[in-house]
Amino acid sequence: MKQMGNPYGLHRVIEPAGVLPQPALRISNDMSEIWDNEILVDVDILNIDSASFTQIKEQANGDEKEIEKIILSIVENAGKMKNPVTGSGGMFIGTVKTIGDRLKGKIDLEEGDKIASLVSLSLTPLKIEKILEIKKNIDQVIIKGQAVLFETGLYAKLPEDIPASLALAVLDVCGAPAQVARMVKSGDTVVIIGAGGKSGILCAYEAKRRAGIAGKVIGVDYSDETLDRLRSLDLCDHVIKLDASDAVSCYEAIKGLTDGAMADIVINNVNIPNTEMGSILMTRDRGVVYFFSMSTSFTKAALGAEGVGKDVDMIMGNGYAKNHAEITLNILRESPEIRALYENLYS
Amino acid sequence: MKQMGNPYGLHRVIEPAGVLPQPALRISNDMSEIWDNEILVDVDILNIDSASFTQIKEQANGDEKEIEKIILSIVENAGKMKNPVTGSGGMFIGTVKTIGDRLKGKIDLEEGDKIASLVSLSLTPLKIEKILEIKKNIDQVIIKGQAVLFETGLYAKLPEDIPASLALAVLDVCGAPAQVARMVKSGDTVVIIGAGGKSGILCAYEAKRRAGIAGKVIGVDYSDETLDRLRSLDLCDHVIKLDASDAVSCYEAIKGLTDGAMADIVINNVNIPNTEMGSILMTRDRGVVYFFSMSTSFTKAALGAEGVGKDVDMIMGNGYAKNHAEITLNILRESPEIRALYENLYS
Ligand SMILES: NC(=O)c1ccc[n+]([C@@H]2O[C@H](COP(=O)([O-])OP(=O)(O)OC[C@H]3O[C@@H](n4cnc5c(N)ncnc54)[C@H](OP(=O)(O)O)[C@@H]3O)[C@@H](O)[C@H]2O)c1
Ligand SMILES: NC(=O)c1ccc[n+]([C@@H]2O[C@H](COP(=O)([O-])OP(=O)(O)OC[C@H]3O[C@@H](n4cnc5c(N)ncnc54)[C@H](OP(=O)(O)O)[C@@H]3O)[C@@H](O)[C@H]2O)c1
Repeated sequence: MKQMGNPYGLHRVIEPAGVLPQPALRISNDMSEIWDNEILVDVDILNIDSASFTQIKEQANGDEKEIEKIILSIVENAGKMKNPVTGSGGMFIGTVKTIGDRLKGKIDLEEGDKIASLVSLSLTPLKIEKILEIKKNIDQVIIKGQAVLFETGLYAKLPEDIPASLALAVLDVCGAPAQVARMVKSGDTVVIIGAGGKSGILCAYEAKRRAGIAGKVIGVDYSDETLDRLRSLDLCDHVIKLDASDAVSCYEAIKGLTDGAMADIVINNVNIPNTEMGSILMTRDRGVVYFFSMSTSFTKAALGAEGVGKDVDMIMGNGYAKNHAEITLNILRESPEIRALYENLYS
Repeated sequence: MKQMGNPYGLHRVIEPAGVLPQPALRISNDMSEIWDNEILVDVDILNIDSASFTQIKEQANGDEKEIEKIILSIVENAGKMKNPVTGSGGMFIGTVKTIGDRLKGKIDLEEGDKIASLVSLSLTPLKIEKILEIKKNIDQVIIKGQAVLFETGLYAKLPEDIPASLALAVLDVCGAPAQVARMVKSGDTVVIIGAGGKSGILCAYEAKRRAGIAGKVIGVDYSDETLDRLRSLDLCDHVIKLDASDAVSCYEAIKGLTDGAMADIVINNVNIPNTEMGSILMTRDRGVVYFFSMSTSFTKAALGAEGVGKDVDMIMGNGYAKNHAEITLNILRESPEIRALYENLYS
């Protein structure tokens, strides 16, 4: 076992030298000998970030062989599954094979444990031996391969009461409901864009719990199928059909629904670009826009708000928040309706 | 005068249809007849956003003729000075020529008034007749031309006691100190990255005022010249030399200076890419990173924080905050040292 590994995984960075593994263009995915502060995992499933998978599907024109090729070539070139267009990654599920000597006994993990990674694939050394199956509609890829978690890497032991692929699916987006839990206060008017999506539903559940009877949760989505699904869960006070990239319609609709008061908090969970302005216009002065979507453009948001003189706080979705895994898995335990839907959709 | 103009300027958008002027690829800069809810301004000076001007200078290899060509071709193609690479704009100074009939008498402005625009050039219809001079070292371009402000556009009447080009220079970044004024509390440890730059100095002044004697303001910058300048102003408790794109050094330095406590608030005012990780690592758990830099990448920040398991709030710099122009001009009135420096540097 190699020694003196850096806690952030700097020792695996090949190019450019000195940067952290996430921004790096290429990291080492050599699994033949690990460092003594690493965890080596046999990987079964990758959950590709929604924005990344959407981009890859488009580039491949939906062709499965082509998707496979793109994924393999990304990992071969970069040593990790970081989509060069979207910059984003995803997560994995696997079984702990080797725990580095310096970590052994000091962490709550044993060889043989089933875990989900809670750090992005965009910084995780990954080697794919073979792609066994691509589950196109749930962004999951079944593989034979290995990954490495660094000393500072986050993971969750898979719970006994929730199937692995379902846990993986929700853990991928677990930062969002955890941030919502912090932000939304009793009485708030909350708009959730992409509310019928995977992270959107979890956010809607958590928002309604916090906003309470005095508050109002407005779910926005686009396709009729997703809207029906969202309505059937009965989480939102209003469910409306809007194209989030049509800023002006978004503004008009929320103005109508709130008698001109607009939203205290807007949570953006879509997987498409150009929804910054719509999010900003739906928010009241001094309200908060929370961008979870990986398709968010910094300049579009910053200049967009200035351009319309909108004094709002714009927060970038941090994928990590303390206890995010527990908060999110707990939603599946509390809500049999969401659990049934997600078992159906994502596992 | 044309009628029924949209308050956000939608009536000027050519491509793609239906989006707002900021995201639009092309807007109309036809100044021959304005809409009755527009303000037509004879423009004297453009202040190009720092990130944009840096990019243009690089593309032109510093050649002035080439810079001129690039600026003219951007405005000719887009109808506005929106840098297609950085997505950012800047501001202008000029004299009000015509106030649309529907605005006349209803706004605190008369024809002949000298104003600075407070909305980005990235959404402002602009026609350049001639470039008269390029002030390469202060990002200003002296032109003969015209611009249009929309009904929702923000502007400031130029104060009598501050020279126009100085006012323009500071108003360009006036969102930053105004946000700092809101955020920093007594006793806070605040790190300002790019603290010797134009917005950095204003932020350092405002941060020290708010953090007070119990707090600590740490100014970070890179070149010795800028560091000396910053030290001479005596605004910061510590001034240190760091490359903000070297995340690990940033972490070590602030860890040392704060006895491991790290910063409560980190304010990023640089004009170069790849400083997200450094900013995040300098911040304490549950602290705030405020990204004012237009070179910020959303995915690098969001995935970077997750990648190292750092539970911080990351805020996107909104160029607009209530009273931002007054707050910023007032710093020049309060601090003769900053005013003298800025008169020297920017006018
Ligand atoms: N910040 C982080 O750390 C982090 C971590 C993980 C994921 N993410 C990001 O979070 C976002 C959501 O992820 P997810 O897994 O929840 O994705 P998802 O299940 O695909 O949900 C996206 C939702 O957006 C809706 N949508 C698409 N186009 C729309 C439009 N024009 N107007 C309104 N709604 C529209 C979709 O509706 P339809 O079904 O009608 O298309 C869908 O309901 C992605 O961008 C992902 O990259 C962020
Ligand atoms: N969010 C908004 O609405 C908004 C509005 C306007 C401007 N901005 C942005 O704010 C940023 C700052 O603008 P500004 O006018 O203040 O720019 P500026 O005067 O050029 O200041 C930039 C500072 O960053 C420093 N710097 C450069 N490279 C560095 C490095 N590697 N490590 C540490 N410091 C470094 C520079 O130092 P040296 O002198 O040593 O190079 C300089 O002091 C720009 O990105 C601009 O686009 C944002």
